[in-house]
Amino acid sequence: MPGKIKLFVVKIGGNIIDDDVRLSEFLRLFAALPGAKILVHGGGKLATDLAEKLGIQQVMIEGRRVTDESTLRIAEMVYGGLVNKQLVAALHPLGCTALGVCGADGDLIRAHKRRHPTIDFGLVGDIDAVNAPLLDRWLGQGLTPVIAPLSHDGEGQLFNTNADTIAQEIAKAMSQAFHVVLVFGFEKNGVLLDMNDEKSCLTQIDFESFQELKRREVITRGMIPKLENAFSAVRDGVGRVIIGRAELLPQLIEGTSGTSIVWDRHENY
Amino acid sequence: MPGKIKLFVVKIGGNIIDDDVRLSEFLRLFAALPGAKILVHGGGKLATDLAEKLGIQQVMIEGRRVTDESTLRIAEMVYGGLVNKQLVAALHPLGCTALGVCGADGDLIRAHKRRHPTIDFGLVGDIDAVNAPLLDRWLGQGLTPVIAPLSHDGEGQLFNTNADTIAQEIAKAMSQAFHVVLVFGFEKNGVLLDMNDEKSCLTQIDFESFQELKRREVITRGMIPKLENAFSAVRDGVGRVIIGRAELLPQLIEGTSGTSIVWDRHENY
Repeated sequence: MPGKIKLFVVKIGGNIIDDDVRLSEFLRLFAALPGAKILVHGGGKLATDLAEKLGIQQVMIEGRRVTDESTLRIAEMVYGGLVNKQLVAALHPLGCTALGVCGADGDLIRAHKRRHPTIDFGLVGDIDAVNAPLLDRWLGQGLTPVIAPLSHDGEGQLFNTNADTIAQEIAKAMSQAFHVVLVFGFEKNGVLLDMNDEKSCLTQIDFESFQELKRREVITRGMIPKLENAFSAVRDGVGRVIIGRAELLPQLIEGTSGTSIVWDRHENY
Repeated sequence: MPGKIKLFVVKIGGNIIDDDVRLSEFLRLFAALPGAKILVHGGGKLATDLAEKLGIQQVMIEGRRVTDESTLRIAEMVYGGLVNKQLVAALHPLGCTALGVCGADGDLIRAHKRRHPTIDFGLVGDIDAVNAPLLDRWLGQGLTPVIAPLSHDGEGQLFNTNADTIAQEIAKAMSQAFHVVLVFGFEKNGVLLDMNDEKSCLTQIDFESFQELKRREVITRGMIPKLENAFSAVRDGVGRVIIGRAELLPQLIEGTSGTSIVWDRHENY
C-alpha cells in the first residue's frame, strides 16, 4: 500500500509471557522491528496463579472467564501492573522506548459491559472505540505503546478485554493512517490441520476455508475466536494478518513461517 | 513568576488511597484544578495487605521498606497496576484525561540502585533524571499524568522509589518551564507542633525553624524525610510547596490551610 507508513501491531499471549527464555528472545526480535510498532499482551498463568494464591474462584462459561470484582482486581494487578511494567522495563535496554498503558490511559480504549442474551460475563468490556490519534502521536514521538488487556467505559469502570480483540481493534483503527501488519504470536506454528502435528501448518487460510474447517471440526474452540478476530481485521482494511510462533517474528513477517489470513483465496500478498 | 504557566504537582499517600470516601472527594478537587496538573501516588495498606496474604515477609530498616524481588513484584502489581489504573479510571468521568504511568514508561524516571555504606535497601532506586520534555508533551496534549512510585535503570531493572521523592524531583524538573505548585497531601493539617493537636499546625515553616524543631524533637521520624523532600524542592526552584490535608486541596493552594514551606522566614508568598 504505497504512501502509507508501515506499522507492526504484535500480540503475545500468556504462554510466551510465562517462559522467560522465549519471552526475552521474542522481545529482542520485537525491538529490532524497524519503525513504528505496538505490543499488545495477555497475562497468562500469572493471573490464575495469583487468584489461586488469594483464594479467588475463577468462573468460566463457554471457555471465557467471568470477571467479578475480585477477578478484575487481579487483572489490574497482573496485566496492568506486573506484566506490563516488566515488558516495558525489558524493552528499554533493547533500544525500544516503551510506554506501558491500559485502555483507560489517555482514554485509549472505550468499551461497554458485554451484553449477552443469557450469560452475564461480569466486568468484561466490548470495545466501542480506539483512540487512534493518541497512538499516532505517541508513535510520532518515538514511543512504543505496550498495551495491557483492560478497557474502560469513561464513567469510572475498568473492564477485562480479550487481548486478541484489542490487537485487532487497534490494527483496524490504525489502518486509516498506516499500512498495518498485524501479528498474532502464540505457541504454535500457525493454523494446524492436525493439532498434534506442527508440520500440518497452513501457509494461508481464507474465509471460506475457515468456515469449512470449522464445520469439519478441524479448527476447534480456542482457535475459533482467534481466527474470527483475524478475519475481522482483514475484512476491515488491515494490510496483512499473520498467526504463528511468537519467537519466529521475522519469519512470520517475511512470510516464511506462520499462517497468513486472507479474505479471498485468490488474493496475493 | 510571570511568563510561566502554572503546573500543579500533587502527591497523595496511602492513607487517602485506602479511604474511598476521602479519595473520591480528593479526586473531584484535583480534577477541578485549572490547567496543567500531575498526580503522584503511593500505595498504602494495599501493598502490605497483599504481601501478607501471599506470605511475603516485609523487612524494614530505619523505617524504610527493604525491597527484595517479591516485594518489588507486589509494588509493580499494587502501585503500577491496581492503584494507578483505578485512579486513572476514576478521573475520566471528572473531565480529566488521565494517563497512568510508572517511571519506566517512556523512560520517565531514570534511577540507580541506592548506595548506602551499611544498609542494602534492595531494589530501591535513587533518581538520576526526570524526563521533563516527555511530561511537557503529555501536558500539551491535554493529558494528566498519574504516576506510580516505580523507577528504572534503563537496563531492564525496575525499582521501588519513594512517592514524595518522585513528586519533588518531578516538581524540580518541571520548574524550568513552569511555575510549579507542589502539594504534599496527607492525613494531617500540615506540620504540627503537637502530633495530637491538629490545631497546632504551622502556617509556614522555614529551613532554620525546621532544623530547630528537629533538634527539639518536635518534628520526628515520618515527617523528617517528607520535609527534607519539601525543602529540597524549595531550594531548587519550585515555585511553591505546601503540605497539608489532601481533601482540603483548594484551601492548601489558596493558603488558607496547610503549612507552606519556605527557605527563608522573610520570604513572602
